[in-house]
Amino acid sequence: MTEPRLRLRLHFGPGSMFGPGRADLLEAIAAHGSISAAGRQMGMSYRRAWTLVEALNAGFSAPLVDSSRGGAAGGGAKLTAEGLAVLAHYRKLEMTLAEAGAAEIAALQQLACAIPTRK
Amino acid sequence: MTEPRLRLRLHFGPGSMFGPGRADLLEAIAAHGSISAAGRQMGMSYRRAWTLVEALNAGFSAPLVDSSRGGAAGGGAKLTAEGLAVLAHYRKLEMTLAEAGAAEIAALQQLACAIPTRK
Repeated sequence: MTEPRLRLRLHFGPGSMFGPGRADLLEAIAAHGSISAAGRQMGMSYRRAWTLVEALNAGFSAPLVDSSRGGAAGGGAKLTAEGLAVLAHYRKLEMTLAEAGAAEIAALQQLACAIPTRK
Repeated sequence: MTEPRLRLRLHFGPGSMFGPGRADLLEAIAAHGSISAAGRQMGMSYRRAWTLVEALNAGFSAPLVDSSRGGAAGGGAKLTAEGLAVLAHYRKLEMTLAEAGAAEIAALQQLACAIPTRK
């Protein structure tokens, strides 16, 4: 059995949330330079990817994704300085917490079902 | 604005997960001695609460909730030793991680939207 996966979600207030799916989407946008290509990689519809980007841009004090290069030509997208900062802080938080919580996570893993197919 | 809320979800493998909702449900069962009363407190249907308890009991190497006192009389429920252990480890993990991640969480909070009503 693989290590348990720790998923962190931060709720900053109404309408402002950040978690693993949004972090992955930002990373994919940075990698592909395109919201639609990022969405495709993550198996989500174009519309869903855009809705998430809009939520991300509205939920922080500055937009996280710059899609101003879009338009008639199809365009592209990139992370803003704020987007890069949010992503970096979140990834660092994940690492810090996986380390700090290692003992408790191992204890919970011991109690969890060892055989995935168990009913 | 209140502190950002950190929500942790652990995925141990297929069908075995533990997160804030399940922790709250276990706590409510311990407090009320009843699955249905716990569900009511959490605003979930009787059926939903039972389904979650069944998933919890199947997802760990031993049941977390003992509802054997149920039956014709309506009965009650309590946490098993394993249920108490899982809940205690999870709550300790939450505290440990909130402390260990304080700097990164504060940095993310700074970047998050300060005005919840902002569009």
